[in-house]
Amino acid sequence: METAQLAAGVIKGERRALARAITLVESAREDHRVQASELLQLLPLDRQALRIGLSGTPGVGKSTFVESFGMMLVEKGLRVAVLAVDPSSSRSGGSILGDKTRMDRLARAPNAFIRPSPSQTHLGGVARRSREAVALCEAAGFDVVLIETVGVGQSETVVAEISDLFLLLLAPAGGDELQGVKRGIMEIADMILVNKADGDLKPAATRTCADYAGALRLLRKRPQDPEGFPKAVMVSALHENGLADVWQDIETLIAWRRAQGFWHRTRADQARYWFGQDVRNALLGQLETPQARAALKSFGDKVASGEMPPSVAAQSFLAGLDRRDGSKS
Amino acid sequence: METAQLAAGVIKGERRALARAITLVESAREDHRVQASELLQLLPLDRQALRIGLSGTPGVGKSTFVESFGMMLVEKGLRVAVLAVDPSSSRSGGSILGDKTRMDRLARAPNAFIRPSPSQTHLGGVARRSREAVALCEAAGFDVVLIETVGVGQSETVVAEISDLFLLLLAPAGGDELQGVKRGIMEIADMILVNKADGDLKPAATRTCADYAGALRLLRKRPQDPEGFPKAVMVSALHENGLADVWQDIETLIAWRRAQGFWHRTRADQARYWFGQDVRNALLGQLETPQARAALKSFGDKVASGEMPPSVAAQSFLAGLDRRDGSKS
Repeated sequence: METAQLAAGVIKGERRALARAITLVESAREDHRVQASELLQLLPLDRQALRIGLSGTPGVGKSTFVESFGMMLVEKGLRVAVLAVDPSSSRSGGSILGDKTRMDRLARAPNAFIRPSPSQTHLGGVARRSREAVALCEAAGFDVVLIETVGVGQSETVVAEISDLFLLLLAPAGGDELQGVKRGIMEIADMILVNKADGDLKPAATRTCADYAGALRLLRKRPQDPEGFPKAVMVSALHENGLADVWQDIETLIAWRRAQGFWHRTRADQARYWFGQDVRNALLGQLETPQARAALKSFGDKVASGEMPPSVAAQSFLAGLDRRDGSKS
Repeated sequence: METAQLAAGVIKGERRALARAITLVESAREDHRVQASELLQLLPLDRQALRIGLSGTPGVGKSTFVESFGMMLVEKGLRVAVLAVDPSSSRSGGSILGDKTRMDRLARAPNAFIRPSPSQTHLGGVARRSREAVALCEAAGFDVVLIETVGVGQSETVVAEISDLFLLLLAPAGGDELQGVKRGIMEIADMILVNKADGDLKPAATRTCADYAGALRLLRKRPQDPEGFPKAVMVSALHENGLADVWQDIETLIAWRRAQGFWHRTRADQARYWFGQDVRNALLGQLETPQARAALKSFGDKVASGEMPPSVAAQSFLAGLDRRDGSKS
């Protein structure tokens, strides 16, 4: 399909065109990259969705939450897109979100669009493609883009840098089991949602929620947080309890950030950040050739064994990189 | 002084030679960089000190702690070096640790060496110089190197990646004042020391300590932590209370990590990390020229205002960078 035609389809909100466009930005093929770049330049820059980042390890009920929360938004008349950022899917052999059957109702809703995580490469690539997929969903007129991740490695940081706000979904736990939150993630969470606050697990959820509320209070207040945020609340995605309150909290948070200028500033900062990241990734891409990798490994072994100081090894490695560059030109 | 002579002086543990060598590795001058590199290659690689990272904001009693803790170690017959990593000193107009009078006894102890933070440049440079200063102290036969920082920006990460273990010094606080710990720092702390647990502040210190002990329990256990770590304890640097217990905890922690192989593995990982950082810093150094900075600023403004997508701006910027490179050669 021609690029202009594809762009027009996306802008009209055609799901097939959007799906094809996302496939295009996900492709690593050089000609696809060129076409994707052309496509992105044809999109209107004035359409903005609310971008909600969501992280939760397997077993916390993330699919159920996305289904229930997404359906609630769709029933409010909002158009909802769901994207997955999953840098680990090459290991697990496929997308965590690939199984749309776990989001049965949302997958069939006309105003919803669910996109499983692509089979992936390195995290830098995942970040760029996820950003571009979000941009496509915004151009297609979606009101809310839910960007979810399983929180492997740095993927939460990637999602946080694409999102307007970040939700961390946790399961209730007791005593020692509480050690489940990766250090550092509390830094980026705007809301901690303790799921499964129903039936037998309700007392544990109450305890867990209070514990995390206490832990959040121990951290330094960020300028972009209104009074009471970040906060920990209980939900039951299964019984659809607490979801309306979460949405109301989100609206309160976002309204405050818009009024205070943080919404715009964060988006501008994120754009600058990703521009810088793209530039850096390109420069560091020189380290990704097979020859460079082999030399890095060999020098790395020498510094690890204490044979050579790191700075001396770096100088030797870079001298070799320059020579190879020179012989190419 | 000749490089070989300087190296010999350092290896003999001569304080003047050590001070000169540190000045050399701190210098940004190109000829000094070359000489520093030669010097580092002349040092024995088999001398290891215990490297203790220490972070605390101004007012927590860090100088008093370093003085009391350092004197205790010196009195045990250990040789103690104190280095400061202070990326903010260019702003504050000098070193936080510059005032040795606040460590009166330690500054005069024959087996101690205190090195104020250099007037600084960018954090990458601070990291490399601090590493090299640590290497010089090890070569000079010190048993313990205390590497302290005020915890501005990323300096704690730098210190943690140089250290064998990391101490976070806090002051007692009540209620809302507790929001003083930067999110993310709990990730790297092996021990949280609540100082000023004396006199009127003792009840507040007890509460603060319990709060942080609770918060630490909510975080995921790291493989390199034996039972009971990371831990929060109370000390009074002023009254020299609790310091012997801290040292015993450190010895327990380090003995366990040595026995389990984490000591060696961490050092090897750190060496690999710094090798990689040095290589990356050199490649990204291309962005530090005045022309590159100007172009980054101009494209950055365009993406921040939404005029251009980040990936498109990155491609345009890199094309310009290549052209400039081409015209040079």
